[in-house]
Amino acid sequence: MPRQMHLGLFILGTGSHAAGWRYPGAVDSFQDFAAIREIGRTAERGLFDMIFMGDNLYADPDAHPSYTLRLEPLTMLAALATSTRHIGLGATVSTTYSDPFTVARAFASLDHISGGRAAWNAVTTANPTTAANFGTTHPNHARRYEMASEFLDVVTGLWDGWADDALVADRASGVYLDPSKLRSIDHEGTFFKVKGPLNIGRSPQGRPVILQAGGSEAGQALAARTADVVFSVVQDIDEAKEGYRSLKDRLPALGRSADEVTVLPGVMPIVGRTTKEAFDKLAVLQSFVNDGNALSILSDRFGQDMSAFDLDGPVPDLALPDSYHSFARVMLAKARRENMTLRDLYNLTAAARGHWVLCGSAESIADTLQQWFEERAADGFNVMPPYFHEGFTDFVDLVIPILQERGLFRRAYEGPMLRDQLGLKRPERRAA
Amino acid sequence: MPRQMHLGLFILGTGSHAAGWRYPGAVDSFQDFAAIREIGRTAERGLFDMIFMGDNLYADPDAHPSYTLRLEPLTMLAALATSTRHIGLGATVSTTYSDPFTVARAFASLDHISGGRAAWNAVTTANPTTAANFGTTHPNHARRYEMASEFLDVVTGLWDGWADDALVADRASGVYLDPSKLRSIDHEGTFFKVKGPLNIGRSPQGRPVILQAGGSEAGQALAARTADVVFSVVQDIDEAKEGYRSLKDRLPALGRSADEVTVLPGVMPIVGRTTKEAFDKLAVLQSFVNDGNALSILSDRFGQDMSAFDLDGPVPDLALPDSYHSFARVMLAKARRENMTLRDLYNLTAAARGHWVLCGSAESIADTLQQWFEERAADGFNVMPPYFHEGFTDFVDLVIPILQERGLFRRAYEGPMLRDQLGLKRPERRAA
Repeated sequence: MPRQMHLGLFILGTGSHAAGWRYPGAVDSFQDFAAIREIGRTAERGLFDMIFMGDNLYADPDAHPSYTLRLEPLTMLAALATSTRHIGLGATVSTTYSDPFTVARAFASLDHISGGRAAWNAVTTANPTTAANFGTTHPNHARRYEMASEFLDVVTGLWDGWADDALVADRASGVYLDPSKLRSIDHEGTFFKVKGPLNIGRSPQGRPVILQAGGSEAGQALAARTADVVFSVVQDIDEAKEGYRSLKDRLPALGRSADEVTVLPGVMPIVGRTTKEAFDKLAVLQSFVNDGNALSILSDRFGQDMSAFDLDGPVPDLALPDSYHSFARVMLAKARRENMTLRDLYNLTAAARGHWVLCGSAESIADTLQQWFEERAADGFNVMPPYFHEGFTDFVDLVIPILQERGLFRRAYEGPMLRDQLGLKRPERRAA
Repeated sequence: MPRQMHLGLFILGTGSHAAGWRYPGAVDSFQDFAAIREIGRTAERGLFDMIFMGDNLYADPDAHPSYTLRLEPLTMLAALATSTRHIGLGATVSTTYSDPFTVARAFASLDHISGGRAAWNAVTTANPTTAANFGTTHPNHARRYEMASEFLDVVTGLWDGWADDALVADRASGVYLDPSKLRSIDHEGTFFKVKGPLNIGRSPQGRPVILQAGGSEAGQALAARTADVVFSVVQDIDEAKEGYRSLKDRLPALGRSADEVTVLPGVMPIVGRTTKEAFDKLAVLQSFVNDGNALSILSDRFGQDMSAFDLDGPVPDLALPDSYHSFARVMLAKARRENMTLRDLYNLTAAARGHWVLCGSAESIADTLQQWFEERAADGFNVMPPYFHEGFTDFVDLVIPILQERGLFRRAYEGPMLRDQLGLKRPERRAA
């Protein structure tokens, strides 16, 4: 079997496009569990490795309204566990505003409930507004990563507190547990003091899968040491290749092999049966956003005043400063190759606010994903639909079959657990 | 419609009898979600108001082994939400070792996911061992209740942070939220500092239902002020009546009516088709417990040396000291009336370690429950099966139909939400 692509579905509010909920027929509430269940089932129909839910810990109606009103990740994923059968379930929980005993316990529980499909997206919380909801002060970046590192050690230590065979439950003798098969961790660190063991047994996957997304040097270092799956934010293939290689190159020194970490760049696909259909959809989405600032966004992007150009005219032949971000260079080349207008280009760059937008026919999207995958810019993708359901079913119904035909993506789930889909072996319980 | 009984199912590990898991065919792991789902469905078939799950925050293999290995309550109840349709879902979360923002958010989420069936059993954590898992010191009883009281105010304040109609989601205008319909709480108290609002909208029940169980004066005072349902630990009807009246009498001064709080004494039913069958079951359960200490337990219970008596002989005519607990008096009268041996009496008192054990034919159990209900010792019962599944299906299949025939218990759910089953109206959002 040739190397296979991995796909995560990223759910952020009613969709990753800030105004995706306005699309005709789109899901308009992220509190509607029936809608979320349907999304989960679509992802499972598409044989996605996992569903992965972002989070925040404060309400900000001005930022992205559709995700200031949202379900809490652990309860949502636990509810999805019983509404799906194979797909992995990744919940974001902050290492900055939680405690390790509670987090370790909840994810072990989710892993038991789901039969080995739990994943924890272990994030640090960047937004300082959060502190006010927890009666504390917001730690700075360096401190947050120190906390995260210790937090992860405590949690994985707690997950290893029970041997797999600690539960005896012998009716005849009345022996229920073998006390020699569980141990405390007696952790006393800089930030946390946790005795253990947990009051839950070792989970089906041994340890739930660890997801991470930090792009900083501290984030990369932590991910290389502790993550099973890394989500990256990239805009072009060269940048993605560099990030991919940089992460994988860190692994041998940490005693890990390159295939122990799955790298999934985030991508917002806008899929059409034709290129035109895709760009029409994008135009509808973008019409919901105030486009008065289109030229200023483009000016910023290309480092020169673009107001001289017609938004609906062709993309001009710009000379970019040498130091300029390769993203701009790549986008310009793509725009000229595809005969885009300036407005098309703006639509393409502004929609996902920093995430990579891939707009085109299903065939062309499959081509690009294949290229990224084969050239080792990615082990797969974190798919960020602009809205639900159509913005996602388009991908499942139109793109997935092409990837399957090309032998790039599974035709059935590999096994019952998320580790099976990711090709990760069950971790041994570490010695005390 | 005459006054109706309310029933909660209490799940504690593999059953409330410490060795219930040894019963032939019994569920022997509280990590087995498939078994828990079946329990949930049986409870729903029995039209129970709710399932209610106890909790602890440490592992103690010596205490009650079947609940040192357990699922975490919120994930378990969220998973049950999608496996059931009508039954209320009560999770225990400590006010001593959690933070109010996270708790308020999780229960609001569970209420959304379940369509209005969430309940929070707001406990203080008594066991000092817990502190070591949270890197803190264990607060004393008084302080724990002060914390609990403030915690509850913060949580209910957060639940009231959003108006029901804050979500606008108008596709045409692009208005998603009405910011005037949400507010911070800006709480700064002795223990907690929480700004709010939550990042989740007002939940289907307005506020999830509040359960409490504290028996102390501080516990009673808190329950009278904040609880919708109170679980009590009682052993005889006079004691139960006194506790019931004491709680209900506190309500008017707090601006609440007597029917705003439902009082459910805990009871472990051992149900037989005949009295003999029930006592045989109890004997099997008790055979799993070391009964070498039977006479010493009875001596302690009756305040005199019982070793002169034959365990398998009749219950002697004892003169009890005047100050003695009415429980002993009631049990003695019952034992003589029912021609029990001393061993029967021991079995009856020791099984549930302090909880009321009701052993007998389905008819006699229904008689007793009816008497307690009609004489205002209870508004219903918190049923604590000794083991699963039979220890519970016996109650559902044999006792429930009798209660229904007598017009004491519902024949169908009253509505979609837990508040509907409890006859509680949806609370208004309080003014800021």
